[in-house]
Amino acid sequence: MAYEHASAPANIFERRESRVRSYCRSFPAVFKSARGSELIAEDGTRYIDFLSGCSTLNYGHNHPELKQALLDYIGADGVAHGLDMHTRAKARFLNTFERLILKPRSMDHRVLFPGPTGANAVEAALKTARKVTGRTNVIAFTNGFHGMTLGALAATGNSGKRGGAGVPLTGVTHEAFDGYFGEDTDTADQLDRRLSDPSSGLDKPAAIIVETVQGEGGLNVASDAWLRKIEKIARKHGALFIIDDIQAGIGRTGGFFSFEKAGVTPDIITMAKSLSGLGLPFALTLIRPQHDLWKPGEHNGTFRGNNHAFVTATKALELFWADDAFEKETARKAARLRAGLEKIAASASFAGRLKGKGMMSGIEMESGDVAAEICTECFQNGLIIETSGSMDEVVKVLAPLTITDAELDAGLKILADAVRAVSARRQKSAA
Amino acid sequence: MAYEHASAPANIFERRESRVRSYCRSFPAVFKSARGSELIAEDGTRYIDFLSGCSTLNYGHNHPELKQALLDYIGADGVAHGLDMHTRAKARFLNTFERLILKPRSMDHRVLFPGPTGANAVEAALKTARKVTGRTNVIAFTNGFHGMTLGALAATGNSGKRGGAGVPLTGVTHEAFDGYFGEDTDTADQLDRRLSDPSSGLDKPAAIIVETVQGEGGLNVASDAWLRKIEKIARKHGALFIIDDIQAGIGRTGGFFSFEKAGVTPDIITMAKSLSGLGLPFALTLIRPQHDLWKPGEHNGTFRGNNHAFVTATKALELFWADDAFEKETARKAARLRAGLEKIAASASFAGRLKGKGMMSGIEMESGDVAAEICTECFQNGLIIETSGSMDEVVKVLAPLTITDAELDAGLKILADAVRAVSARRQKSAA
Amino acid sequence: MAYEHASAPANIFERRESRVRSYCRSFPAVFKSARGSELIAEDGTRYIDFLSGCSTLNYGHNHPELKQALLDYIGADGVAHGLDMHTRAKARFLNTFERLILKPRSMDHRVLFPGPTGANAVEAALKTARKVTGRTNVIAFTNGFHGMTLGALAATGNSGKRGGAGVPLTGVTHEAFDGYFGEDTDTADQLDRRLSDPSSGLDKPAAIIVETVQGEGGLNVASDAWLRKIEKIARKHGALFIIDDIQAGIGRTGGFFSFEKAGVTPDIITMAKSLSGLGLPFALTLIRPQHDLWKPGEHNGTFRGNNHAFVTATKALELFWADDAFEKETARKAARLRAGLEKIAASASFAGRLKGKGMMSGIEMESGDVAAEICTECFQNGLIIETSGSMDEVVKVLAPLTITDAELDAGLKILADAVRAVSARRQKSAA
Amino acid sequence: MAYEHASAPANIFERRESRVRSYCRSFPAVFKSARGSELIAEDGTRYIDFLSGCSTLNYGHNHPELKQALLDYIGADGVAHGLDMHTRAKARFLNTFERLILKPRSMDHRVLFPGPTGANAVEAALKTARKVTGRTNVIAFTNGFHGMTLGALAATGNSGKRGGAGVPLTGVTHEAFDGYFGEDTDTADQLDRRLSDPSSGLDKPAAIIVETVQGEGGLNVASDAWLRKIEKIARKHGALFIIDDIQAGIGRTGGFFSFEKAGVTPDIITMAKSLSGLGLPFALTLIRPQHDLWKPGEHNGTFRGNNHAFVTATKALELFWADDAFEKETARKAARLRAGLEKIAASASFAGRLKGKGMMSGIEMESGDVAAEICTECFQNGLIIETSGSMDEVVKVLAPLTITDAELDAGLKILADAVRAVSARRQKSAA
Repeated sequence: MAYEHASAPANIFERRESRVRSYCRSFPAVFKSARGSELIAEDGTRYIDFLSGCSTLNYGHNHPELKQALLDYIGADGVAHGLDMHTRAKARFLNTFERLILKPRSMDHRVLFPGPTGANAVEAALKTARKVTGRTNVIAFTNGFHGMTLGALAATGNSGKRGGAGVPLTGVTHEAFDGYFGEDTDTADQLDRRLSDPSSGLDKPAAIIVETVQGEGGLNVASDAWLRKIEKIARKHGALFIIDDIQAGIGRTGGFFSFEKAGVTPDIITMAKSLSGLGLPFALTLIRPQHDLWKPGEHNGTFRGNNHAFVTATKALELFWADDAFEKETARKAARLRAGLEKIAASASFAGRLKGKGMMSGIEMESGDVAAEICTECFQNGLIIETSGSMDEVVKVLAPLTITDAELDAGLKILADAVRAVSARRQKSAA
Repeated sequence: MAYEHASAPANIFERRESRVRSYCRSFPAVFKSARGSELIAEDGTRYIDFLSGCSTLNYGHNHPELKQALLDYIGADGVAHGLDMHTRAKARFLNTFERLILKPRSMDHRVLFPGPTGANAVEAALKTARKVTGRTNVIAFTNGFHGMTLGALAATGNSGKRGGAGVPLTGVTHEAFDGYFGEDTDTADQLDRRLSDPSSGLDKPAAIIVETVQGEGGLNVASDAWLRKIEKIARKHGALFIIDDIQAGIGRTGGFFSFEKAGVTPDIITMAKSLSGLGLPFALTLIRPQHDLWKPGEHNGTFRGNNHAFVTATKALELFWADDAFEKETARKAARLRAGLEKIAASASFAGRLKGKGMMSGIEMESGDVAAEICTECFQNGLIIETSGSMDEVVKVLAPLTITDAELDAGLKILADAVRAVSARRQKSAA
Repeated sequence: MAYEHASAPANIFERRESRVRSYCRSFPAVFKSARGSELIAEDGTRYIDFLSGCSTLNYGHNHPELKQALLDYIGADGVAHGLDMHTRAKARFLNTFERLILKPRSMDHRVLFPGPTGANAVEAALKTARKVTGRTNVIAFTNGFHGMTLGALAATGNSGKRGGAGVPLTGVTHEAFDGYFGEDTDTADQLDRRLSDPSSGLDKPAAIIVETVQGEGGLNVASDAWLRKIEKIARKHGALFIIDDIQAGIGRTGGFFSFEKAGVTPDIITMAKSLSGLGLPFALTLIRPQHDLWKPGEHNGTFRGNNHAFVTATKALELFWADDAFEKETARKAARLRAGLEKIAASASFAGRLKGKGMMSGIEMESGDVAAEICTECFQNGLIIETSGSMDEVVKVLAPLTITDAELDAGLKILADAVRAVSARRQKSAA
Repeated sequence: MAYEHASAPANIFERRESRVRSYCRSFPAVFKSARGSELIAEDGTRYIDFLSGCSTLNYGHNHPELKQALLDYIGADGVAHGLDMHTRAKARFLNTFERLILKPRSMDHRVLFPGPTGANAVEAALKTARKVTGRTNVIAFTNGFHGMTLGALAATGNSGKRGGAGVPLTGVTHEAFDGYFGEDTDTADQLDRRLSDPSSGLDKPAAIIVETVQGEGGLNVASDAWLRKIEKIARKHGALFIIDDIQAGIGRTGGFFSFEKAGVTPDIITMAKSLSGLGLPFALTLIRPQHDLWKPGEHNGTFRGNNHAFVTATKALELFWADDAFEKETARKAARLRAGLEKIAASASFAGRLKGKGMMSGIEMESGDVAAEICTECFQNGLIIETSGSMDEVVKVLAPLTITDAELDAGLKILADAVRAVSARRQKSAA
């Protein structure tokens, strides 16, 4: 094999992969296999995965039943690629999604397959909203993250990513997320005030797009009350209400949808990441039928239906979402996680408040430097964990929801040790 | 299974899939499996596939060796999803791509994994060019097709697709493709004239992006000389030269890259569709090293490395591109196809000239109506075939390159019969 | 004369002037002459002018000395139009402006003649800031008004005006003006917070453009402390600080510049309206020398130097700004105005707080309807007065600064009577 | 007076005027007065004016009757500034414009006063077209010049001016002007071809805006047949047909409107420059009544009605456009001018073909350098004359239409001598 023949194994990446590569810089190993909550490197080192593909692997790596379903499908020459033609796999996915997800939640949404990435789902959502309303402006929020293609990137807050566009990003206004100006300022009221003022300069929006928990933005949580207000504001001003549930959804912060308990009904919902269950590229945009004004083929794409993903997604729905057992178990585990994080947060002066919600929780550190040092320390001890936030100051745990208590505890121990080690090192160097 | 329980099989699609669905309207069957050049519907009907996922299945459906490589990988718990972390599968792909594709062609390009769709690859290409040059304008061509996300859509000519954006599409100027104004007008000269005139109003471009054969635009072929001129014009005016090889590349019109014989060296190349070999979502953007000015993570994305696709893509490179046998065999088959099409074109008054190149050829019909009627007739007789062009007036053959002569002939016969039937019907109704 | 021959005098306007005409609808008379604070209609009716061309006639109509200077100039065949060539009139204006305005205030600004309208001045200001910083975003404020050409209109808050653009207005973010969210919210702090957060989605601005008193926006006043904060924020984030002094400047709210007392030094200042003194089209953009990076002719325009306006503007500077007498007298008069308005505001339940500053003051009414009714009543009794604000709810007094006490009192009496009449009418209809 | 006291007269300009100043660099004198075709500098030097404020002074400087009308008006305290209120002066202008210009030409257009500059007129024209059609794209032409504000600048071809914007200019596509690709290419047909192709990427335009003779672009002339085709193409594709008659109109190239002989009826016409007759800022946008969909005040501006300009414009219409004497006399003079230019063009090897039309004619020189050297030589000998064109390669004569034969001949003699001198100098230095 070519790879083995290379004198310096890692060289091929430096030689031929674009400098834009990123996570591989934080975790400089070459991984060969993965199972459940573990990633195994070529040299046999095993890593607990507290990153889970940024919430793409909520059911862990290579879940045996999902894997088997896929092996069976491929083995039987199931259609792998068929553009957006009808396939048995797609029919089964849609039927199962309707039966286990939409119907029990009284949701009448239609499914648009927008291409298999979250950015595609967001682009389709924004196009839909602009088409339906005839307006161009979209309201997104501070620290929001919605993707890297031009339409989605305009809705993303991160200036580093925005700078990559090479053109001014237009069509989106970024408003303050819940709590952005502190507890005393109701940012929803401020938004309503400006939208109600015909001379505010804030153009009437086609949509308001929001994450319930901002994954990249630092695990900021929108309260249920705030979300309801935002929904109300959207309706009042003729805008569609979009929840980008790509990172917070599919059990990560509670129910299948992250907003279920908030009592809102988004006009459009974007999903991706853990949707396939196995980490395969797969995304969808849910649209209420009255807004499904698309003409055939008006939005298209080669990979609009990933049949392998249909198969694993269907199996995942059947396994995890046929009843509330998984949701309850996740809640239990989240409590364990939060308790562990509380202890760690209390153990070092540079560690601050807990952030996030459910299995999407983390600790705000004094600075991005501290957070980075902790993650590096963790990796050296067998734990894959990353930061998020404006200054990369939040150490964030995105473990598989299927992680065992033992693995969770083991991971938390590595994290606790790392915090302690970094703390000691910092005290020493400060002394 | 949920699907079988539905009283009306197709209902789930009407009930729950967005109206934007498209190909399934032309081919109203539900497909369950596929192998080589055939798609098999639930009711057992077998269809010859002259569409191949719009050139995504150049090696046919479920090619046995690609399939086996994937089964082995999954069976061994190979990493399915790892963000852009290093994996053995990725290393092997990069090494093989370097060894079999880049090195033999003396190409020093780096590989950027942009998210697994063609649109992602184009977005990354345009961002790169704008970043490198500090300019915003991009020149694309009439009838070009580059994707549906806002950045890529701006470069796409189709007004129906453009209309879906809901915002004015900016940053791209559409110039006349080779031969657009007839044989006597050199559109490259016209472009150069305007770029050389500081008062033409045509802003200096960051890039010129072009397809060598326009797949969606009607199988228009850029001559080698014209491509060389465009490359020269790009260099002369400080723009990057981008070839979008998503549909025409990977053997479809000749070599691995469609432009090999033209003697040009694009600064950036976009690839997707048949790259994985098995129809899995996978794309890449090749960038010359001097233009790889990306900062780590400046462009990112959850599905930037599809490991399943790395595995099948690697196997496909080894199987088909280790020597020139496949390329030669494809050329032979293309000649057979063109000969067949010539005969068909001569058989009806509404059929015009042959369009396209190699295994990306078709017949220009009098109108989109005629072309659509022919394709409908074909489907009823077991052939999946589609149209392309401004008015959907070109019946286009995108058969797998691995199709057998017998299958090719069988498909051509269905097409010939359909042309004859439509011709007879039209003459009758005209009488 | 053609006009007299028309059977219905006003017909020509209906017949041939665009429906966009506006003020003439509020004041449906045909005016023939004007002097000081009075406008005289064709039928001889005299109107006190509390509008002054929206602050264009701070020295009143046809001020005798300005008029005489212009008559002399024209009589001597002074250059009327000379593009931007040097003329004696321009030299005299620049010298006088330097001597009486810039030098005494230690201002090193250069003068750019941007075309003779406020919008031209704003366009030149924004171009300068974008050119200097290499950034595209500009921060403007809620209820701000900066003009009708596309660049200036993007910075204007009024949705009715914005809607006239016919294209999405880009490149400007509208932030909350001082006091916009009530007294307890420091909108400058909110702005700084977002500009300091690299993930807020608020792109680093080329400039912050602000009016010290928002003329069209409802006579909202920026406090000196807030202005100083905004200046500091601009500097901190690398943006130019622009004050649009078109309506509030030239004595209207205090000094020659409206911001003199605030202790700020704008990088760019826009001026127009009362600059010529006689109501002639004339505007300028003051730029600190380090930002004057223009290349010759890079911004041009046919009417960049209105020599007639140079003449009257020079004379006005000499008459009114050679010492502080005029400024003091204006302050005295403003106190008289405010006292009068206070009384009127107290006389009707629909009248609220006083707004504005100096000779740019008004009363906030319960609604735009009330305000409109009052203005109509005033006109019928010989007073020209208009509304401003998001809902046109502020009755605003923009009398000439040269108005006599007697005229001011007479105007205020008509206003007081109108308020009383409207109040009585409303009480009656409510009964 | 401040100016006289300055030790170095020109210093004030260097000290206080923005570097963007332009014409004053070519003609480094300080002018004090002007009459007819002459400008007189402070030192008494007299210059023949072959520039005429870039066609703003078609009736010469300070035409005695226009001047007297203005003196009378000012002397009688005529309203100088009244926003867009009705004034006697405006009524007289509109009546006269209707009687002498619109009615005789069977034009039903309405007059929108857009602010007193050409750019304002163009902005209003584009806003109108976008409003009426609901489309955003506008088609302008190579080498077109339409103004410096963002909306108008987007339609201007000159890259130097465009670069001043500091933002990407959007919403306008620049197509090839008549003859741009040589005599054999019909650029109107090319435009129609692309607009008729739904996949050309050329968005359906709100308007096509064109100059009949491109003043800044190098005196390129659109043939009558081409203009008629463009009008037809506009109608066919649902776009408004706009003629920007700012430089070529008002007698400069023939009739009052430059397009009268072409037999077209523009939906919108923009006028400025010579409209006031005396060089005062004044512009208007003519709109066919069915397109006058403006709401009151939707487009506004402080200087929308320049009453001084109404007075002089009215008088100019009465003097010059009551019959066809002026038009005939201008044609006679134009013939004399063209004959003179023919001779000069034949006198030097670096001089090429004549360009332009009527009293808007010039000679294309080998290079911008040659043209600049000639103009400098002319200035030293008492002639003000400028260049135009992409490379500033055309020496252009824009003498007052009222110039006497003697003055015209004198100016041409200076030009002929300058050409000869430059030619000699060049031959010498080449030897």
